[in-house]
Amino acid sequence: MSFVKNAWYVAGWSRDFDAALRALTIVGETLVFFRASDGELVALEDRCPHKLLPLSRGKRIGDTIQCGYHGMTFGRDGKCVRVPGQDNLPKSAYVEAFPVEERHGIVWVWMGDRHKADTSKIFDMPEFSDPNWHVHHGDGLHIRGHYLNVAENLVDPAHVSFVHPTTLGSAASEDVPVHVSTSGEVIAAWRWIRNAPPVGFFQKFGGFSGNVDRWHYYYLHLPSTAVIDFGSADAALNLPEEQRDQGVRIFALHFVTPVTEDYTIDYWMHLRNTAVGDHAASEQMDAMFRVAFAEDKEVLEAIHIEEQRPQKRKPIRIAIDKAPNVYRKRIRDLIEAEATEDLGEPERPTFVQLD
Amino acid sequence: MSFVKNAWYVAGWSRDFDAALRALTIVGETLVFFRASDGELVALEDRCPHKLLPLSRGKRIGDTIQCGYHGMTFGRDGKCVRVPGQDNLPKSAYVEAFPVEERHGIVWVWMGDRHKADTSKIFDMPEFSDPNWHVHHGDGLHIRGHYLNVAENLVDPAHVSFVHPTTLGSAASEDVPVHVSTSGEVIAAWRWIRNAPPVGFFQKFGGFSGNVDRWHYYYLHLPSTAVIDFGSADAALNLPEEQRDQGVRIFALHFVTPVTEDYTIDYWMHLRNTAVGDHAASEQMDAMFRVAFAEDKEVLEAIHIEEQRPQKRKPIRIAIDKAPNVYRKRIRDLIEAEATEDLGEPERPTFVQLD
Amino acid sequence: MSFVKNAWYVAGWSRDFDAALRALTIVGETLVFFRASDGELVALEDRCPHKLLPLSRGKRIGDTIQCGYHGMTFGRDGKCVRVPGQDNLPKSAYVEAFPVEERHGIVWVWMGDRHKADTSKIFDMPEFSDPNWHVHHGDGLHIRGHYLNVAENLVDPAHVSFVHPTTLGSAASEDVPVHVSTSGEVIAAWRWIRNAPPVGFFQKFGGFSGNVDRWHYYYLHLPSTAVIDFGSADAALNLPEEQRDQGVRIFALHFVTPVTEDYTIDYWMHLRNTAVGDHAASEQMDAMFRVAFAEDKEVLEAIHIEEQRPQKRKPIRIAIDKAPNVYRKRIRDLIEAEATEDLGEPERPTFVQLD
Repeated sequence: MSFVKNAWYVAGWSRDFDAALRALTIVGETLVFFRASDGELVALEDRCPHKLLPLSRGKRIGDTIQCGYHGMTFGRDGKCVRVPGQDNLPKSAYVEAFPVEERHGIVWVWMGDRHKADTSKIFDMPEFSDPNWHVHHGDGLHIRGHYLNVAENLVDPAHVSFVHPTTLGSAASEDVPVHVSTSGEVIAAWRWIRNAPPVGFFQKFGGFSGNVDRWHYYYLHLPSTAVIDFGSADAALNLPEEQRDQGVRIFALHFVTPVTEDYTIDYWMHLRNTAVGDHAASEQMDAMFRVAFAEDKEVLEAIHIEEQRPQKRKPIRIAIDKAPNVYRKRIRDLIEAEATEDLGEPERPTFVQLD
Repeated sequence: MSFVKNAWYVAGWSRDFDAALRALTIVGETLVFFRASDGELVALEDRCPHKLLPLSRGKRIGDTIQCGYHGMTFGRDGKCVRVPGQDNLPKSAYVEAFPVEERHGIVWVWMGDRHKADTSKIFDMPEFSDPNWHVHHGDGLHIRGHYLNVAENLVDPAHVSFVHPTTLGSAASEDVPVHVSTSGEVIAAWRWIRNAPPVGFFQKFGGFSGNVDRWHYYYLHLPSTAVIDFGSADAALNLPEEQRDQGVRIFALHFVTPVTEDYTIDYWMHLRNTAVGDHAASEQMDAMFRVAFAEDKEVLEAIHIEEQRPQKRKPIRIAIDKAPNVYRKRIRDLIEAEATEDLGEPERPTFVQLD
Repeated sequence: MSFVKNAWYVAGWSRDFDAALRALTIVGETLVFFRASDGELVALEDRCPHKLLPLSRGKRIGDTIQCGYHGMTFGRDGKCVRVPGQDNLPKSAYVEAFPVEERHGIVWVWMGDRHKADTSKIFDMPEFSDPNWHVHHGDGLHIRGHYLNVAENLVDPAHVSFVHPTTLGSAASEDVPVHVSTSGEVIAAWRWIRNAPPVGFFQKFGGFSGNVDRWHYYYLHLPSTAVIDFGSADAALNLPEEQRDQGVRIFALHFVTPVTEDYTIDYWMHLRNTAVGDHAASEQMDAMFRVAFAEDKEVLEAIHIEEQRPQKRKPIRIAIDKAPNVYRKRIRDLIEAEATEDLGEPERPTFVQLD
C-alpha cells in the first residue's frame, strides 16, 4: 500500500456534486457523496455493513441513505437509523463518515484518522481571493497509472522539453539547469529560460512575438498537490525572479488524487493574472492544457505498464531527479509513520548507555 | 471451493438439448452434452485426456464423440473406443461420464461421486402432473455472482420491498415480520401481508382491485433449489394459511446452478393455478419476472464485486438473516462432509470418558 | 519460465523493418528495432533505464534513440550518449543491444548471452538460393497459446486428418502409420499416403486428377523452427522416397517465436519447385494456408485455455506422440542447461568409486 491516508484529497469541483448519490474511489476506498438539504456535502463509506451492497445503489430518504437491498438506513454521520424487521439498532451497524470541506469551489475529503482532520491544513493561496486574478476550474485527467509517478512528473521541469516540445516547452530549454530546494516543507524546482522565442502557450496568451524570459517554478506540497508557476516576460525587461507578477503569469494547480494503485485522477485548474473575466480565454487555455496533459498521460500510462513487467536491473537516477527523489523519500516516511506507533521516549530508559 | 458436488443440478430445459454437442460449465467442471440416437441425454467431461482439447470442439460419430485434434473417440459411457495410429485402447484413455436425468422437461446432472447418484432425490412436486396447474418453463438468468448469494436471496422475503418495490413487493410490507422454520430438511421463511392493495403482479394476474391478503412462502432445498409460493386472495375472505389454493397461487421455482465461483445461472420456471393453458399469460408473466429478476441481478452482481474488495471489518447479520444464516451453515457442513472421510465409531473407544 | 534464450528467433521479414522504431516482444523481453542509416538492423532493449519508458515511444536522432520522457539518448550499441542536465554518462546508463542478422529476407535476433551468438547456427537450406525454387515469405500467425504447443503441432502428422480434413489432409490418412526419427539433432516424423485421391491443396497446385502418392515430412529444429516437406506425385510413378524432387514439392517453413507464455507468433513462408515466379500462385497458396492455419489456431487456443484450468489427472500420451515427447524433453534439457552452470569434472574426484 503506497497511500498517505492522513491527508486532504480533492474529490472534484463543487459544481460536480448535487443531491444525487455519487460514488467515488479515493486511496482505494469507495465513498458515496451527496449534498444534504442544508447544502453541506456528506461523504460516507459506500458499502452497507450488512450484505456489502454499495449505498450508492440505494436511495436518499431526506438526508439519509437507504440501502437498496434490505433497507438499512444511515444518517449523514454514518450511524444506522433504521433496520427493517427489528427495533434495536446495533452499534456495529454503521458506515464510516469522512470529513469534507469546500473551499474556492474545490471539494476536499479527509481519508485518514478523523481525529487528525485539521481544516487549517487544506491547501490555499491568496490569489484565490484576489480580484486581479482569474480563477478557473478545469477538469479531472484520468490516468491509468500510479499517483507517485503523476505527482513526481509535476516537480520535474526536465521533462517539459521532451514531452511537450510544441506546447509548454521547446528544445531551447533542454539543457538549462534546474534549481531545486528541498529544505522546506514544500519541495521546489525551477528554472528560467532567458531570451528565447516564446513557446506556443505564450505566443497565444502573452501576445509576445520577440524573445522572452520564461520561468517554470514547481512546488510540490505533500502528499500530492502541485503548484506550477509559469510565465513569460519581454526579454528586454530582464525581469528579476521576484517580480514575476509583472509578466504574464499562470498558476497551474494539480490536485493529484490516488484512486487505486493503478489509477489516478489529476484534478487541474488555473489562476492567471491576464485575461481576467475572459471566459473564452479560459476555454482556449483548457484546450491547450488538454493537449499537453494528454502528452503526460501517454508517458505515464506507458511507464505504469512497464512497472508491472519484471525488472531485470535497478532503475538509474540522474541529476534531474533530485526533487522527485526527495519527494518519494518523504512519502515513504509518511507512510511508515502512519503504519507504526511511536510511543516516544520512555520516562525511565530500559537501556542505559555507559561511555 | 464452495461447491456441493454430491447433488443434482439443473443443466437447462429438455427443449435446449438436441443432437448437437453442447458445452456447459457446472460447479467449475466443463461438460459436453448431446442427445443420443435413442433420445437419451449424455453428459461427458469436456476435455480429451490426450492434449486437453474440449470434446465439444470435435464431432459426433454416431453416439460417440471424436476429438477434433487427433481423433481419439469416446463412447457415451466415456470409454475410449478408438485411438488413431494404435490398436490398443489404454485404460486411462477415458473421460468422465455424468449421470443425467430428465423430469418434467428439466435436465438434471449429478456432479459428484456417481455411486451416490440417487434419482429418487431429484426435486419433484405433485403439481407438475396435476391438470389444474399450468407448468411453464422460463429461462436461465445469468448472474456474475456467487451461487450462495443467489440462493440466499431466494429465502429472503425481506429484500422484496426494497429491491422489487413496484413488481413483486411494495412499501406496505417493509416491516411485516418474517416467520422462519429451520427445523426440517427444507428451510422455510414466510410472511403474510394482510389487507393491503395488490402489488403490480396481482393487479395484472389476479384481477384484484380492492385490498388483498398476500403471502410469500420461500422454501430452500439444499443445495440450491428454491420454491417460492406466492399469491393473493380477496382480503374479505380472510384466507387461512392452509387454504392458499383458493387464492391466485404461483409456485416460482429457481434451480440455482453454480457455474464457477464467479458465475451462476438461475434456471427459473413457474406453476400456477390460474390461466391454465393460456400461453399469452405465460409470456406476460415471463416479462414481469424478467423485470424483477433484473433487479435481483443488479444487486447480486454489485455485491459480488464488493466481496472481492478488501474487508475492513466483519459484515453484520440482522434479524431477517435467520434463514440465510442457517442455509450457509448447512452448505458449509455439506462441503466439510464431502471433503473428509468419517470412519464412524471405532469398536473399542480410544478414550474412555470417566465421570 | 519455459523459454530457450540462447537461440536465434525470427522477428519478422526484412520488408517489415524500416527507419521507424518498431516494438516487438520476444521470449518475454521487449525490444525496439530500427533500420540504421547504413541499412543494418538495430535491436535494443525497449526500456529506458531511468524511468522505464519504452524507447519505442521516443524518437530517432540519427542512429540513436532519444527517450520521450527526459531525453536520455542511446546509440545502436545500447550505450548512453547523452543525459540532458548533466555531463557525465554513468556506466549503468545503457540498454541491452541484441545481435540481429538478416538472411534471405528473414530477420533473426539472438535473445541469450551475446557471447554465444553464432551466426553459423542460423537456419538455412540450399533451396533458398536455387533458381529452380520459388521463395515466398508469407505472414505471421498470431496465436494466444504456448509456443511448445505450436511447435509440437508442426512435428505431428497425425493431426492433419482431423484438423485439416478438407485442406491439407483427408480421412484416407487417418490410420497411416507415422515414421519417426529422433536420433539426430533434428527431430523428424513422416509418412506416405500412397495411391489416394489428391487432397484439396494438390488438386489445385498439382493439377492431379487421378490418384497420387502424397508425403508429409516434418523436421523440427530446436528450439522452434519447423520444415514441412510435403508433396504429391502421380501414383503410377510409385515414386521412391528419395526422389521427391520429381513430384510437386513444397517446403513450408514455420519460425515459431514465443512472445510471452501466453502468446506466440508463427512466421510462415514457403519454397516450392512449381509455379516458379508465379506471384498469383503464391497468393493462392497463401490463401489456402491461411484457411488451414486458422484451423490450427482454433485448436491451439482452445488447448491453451484448457491448460490454465485445474488438472484433475495426468494427461495421457499415445503412440503418435513420440516426436512431440522427444521435442519437449530436449527443450526441458536446454532450459535446465541454461539455468545452471556445469563446472565439469573436477581434477581430483571428491568421491572415489570402488568396485
